[in-house]
Amino acid sequence: MSEGMQDASNAEPGLAIICGGGSLPFALADAAARRGRRVVLFALRGWADPQRVAGYPHHWTWMGQFSRFMRLAAAEGCRDVALIGSVSRPSLWRIRPDLRVLRLMPQILSLFRGGDDHLQSGIGRLFEQNGFRLLGPKEIAPELLMSHGLVGAREPNARDRADIVRAVTLLNATSPFDIGQAVIVAENQVLAVEGPEGTDRMLARVAELRRNGRIRSAAGTGVLVKAVKIGQDHRIDLPSIGPQTVEMAGAAGLAGLAVVAGSTIVAEPERIAAVADRAKVFVAGVDDDGTLR
Amino acid sequence: MSEGMQDASNAEPGLAIICGGGSLPFALADAAARRGRRVVLFALRGWADPQRVAGYPHHWTWMGQFSRFMRLAAAEGCRDVALIGSVSRPSLWRIRPDLRVLRLMPQILSLFRGGDDHLQSGIGRLFEQNGFRLLGPKEIAPELLMSHGLVGAREPNARDRADIVRAVTLLNATSPFDIGQAVIVAENQVLAVEGPEGTDRMLARVAELRRNGRIRSAAGTGVLVKAVKIGQDHRIDLPSIGPQTVEMAGAAGLAGLAVVAGSTIVAEPERIAAVADRAKVFVAGVDDDGTLR
Repeated sequence: MSEGMQDASNAEPGLAIICGGGSLPFALADAAARRGRRVVLFALRGWADPQRVAGYPHHWTWMGQFSRFMRLAAAEGCRDVALIGSVSRPSLWRIRPDLRVLRLMPQILSLFRGGDDHLQSGIGRLFEQNGFRLLGPKEIAPELLMSHGLVGAREPNARDRADIVRAVTLLNATSPFDIGQAVIVAENQVLAVEGPEGTDRMLARVAELRRNGRIRSAAGTGVLVKAVKIGQDHRIDLPSIGPQTVEMAGAAGLAGLAVVAGSTIVAEPERIAAVADRAKVFVAGVDDDGTLR
Repeated sequence: MSEGMQDASNAEPGLAIICGGGSLPFALADAAARRGRRVVLFALRGWADPQRVAGYPHHWTWMGQFSRFMRLAAAEGCRDVALIGSVSRPSLWRIRPDLRVLRLMPQILSLFRGGDDHLQSGIGRLFEQNGFRLLGPKEIAPELLMSHGLVGAREPNARDRADIVRAVTLLNATSPFDIGQAVIVAENQVLAVEGPEGTDRMLARVAELRRNGRIRSAAGTGVLVKAVKIGQDHRIDLPSIGPQTVEMAGAAGLAGLAVVAGSTIVAEPERIAAVADRAKVFVAGVDDDGTLR
């Protein structure tokens, strides 16, 4: 209400970003700020990077402090909320439930059965039921999403393209089972399906299998493909790739990696292009059937 | 043609067992011998256990010595062939092709594209085209296969049974992709899908994820389920479980393991029962839809 007599009721509401680990929360905050949004970080203790959080208006919070979040977010004029950054599925002991959360406990406990999809849609509902609007990167800053085509100089060859299509088809088949969002396929052989270990560990596993000679395809073949699960809430936990993913794909002897355009976060495309060229891997944004136009 | 003037044309033909690593080849040889079959081992160098091979009529052979195999098998009066024991998919350099194999090279190279199913059906055809009858454990000694019901004292509870059904459903969905034959599911969450690393390493991975707190379900929950792939050649590479699998399932904090009755080799049920009881895991033979009657 200070400078310029801005009327809060007409201004775009503030954006509360509940942020976990990694650099994605800051990429989202910066992109929202560039669009003139007022941003307040709700930094999750144990996950968000304190040094980077310090550069933004912020509140530290424990996972589960829902009343506190609602009170502070309202005081900050935030009705829009985004959830971003890495948090492994919280162990119950890492959550510090406040009173409201304790009242919601039956609902929350039921979220902890089933896979990630189930947990996510439940979290979405929780915010909506309490008057918040949950937004995803797509609504806030679509420029953070992978576009169709190549990042970096290398291109997939015909065999790589066939591997991408096979990987996407497999991801579609496993999607109802609420498993990982990534698989690795080389010369038509499935080398790995991601579980709770995450993409980086899956890549490390394939690198080891290759060293041990348990994979017949030569180094320089194989693709990592990440895709959003069918029916997944796009506002929460879109798959993402960063420079480290690209680096590790190179170390695992893959030809490259592909993600579904429009539903994968690529926060630092320039850095990714540089790393991809150095690691000699391609990075492709493909259609949801795996084709690269 | 010596003792008893036995007429070779009426006698059951000799059985050539091409044997890889592990104890399954000897379990099959013993079971065949108990049924009065004359057995000759063709022990694969680098895979078969020399000490145990020595106890049977045998020839050592390199993978790929197909003419030599045919000559020796014919001289031994073997028209029936079984392939059993662990061999990881051979690297091309581990194969010592003879002349006939070199002539068949285009056909063989094409086997090395695609997953295991493709390789297996090709191997089957190769023997059949050359006048051999390829037999599986089911035809030779059905007593080696898991029967419906429990091995050992422990039983799956309702939650475990639901996990088994989910695991079997997932295996059916991934079956067309020619991946591993095993998955681990705990409280409805998929913890791992087996790739070329094999069952033991997959179990080690889950044990580690559990130690690191990346799996929310408590120790004592979760099932390992192995199933034959749909359309897989049952004569080659049926899934198997041994005492080590059971031991590692216990170490990974699983409640138990289940396999499809009638299409999984369980060579040492008594030892498995003992190990299962000590490791406090159940071992169940289930229907191909995952139900335990």
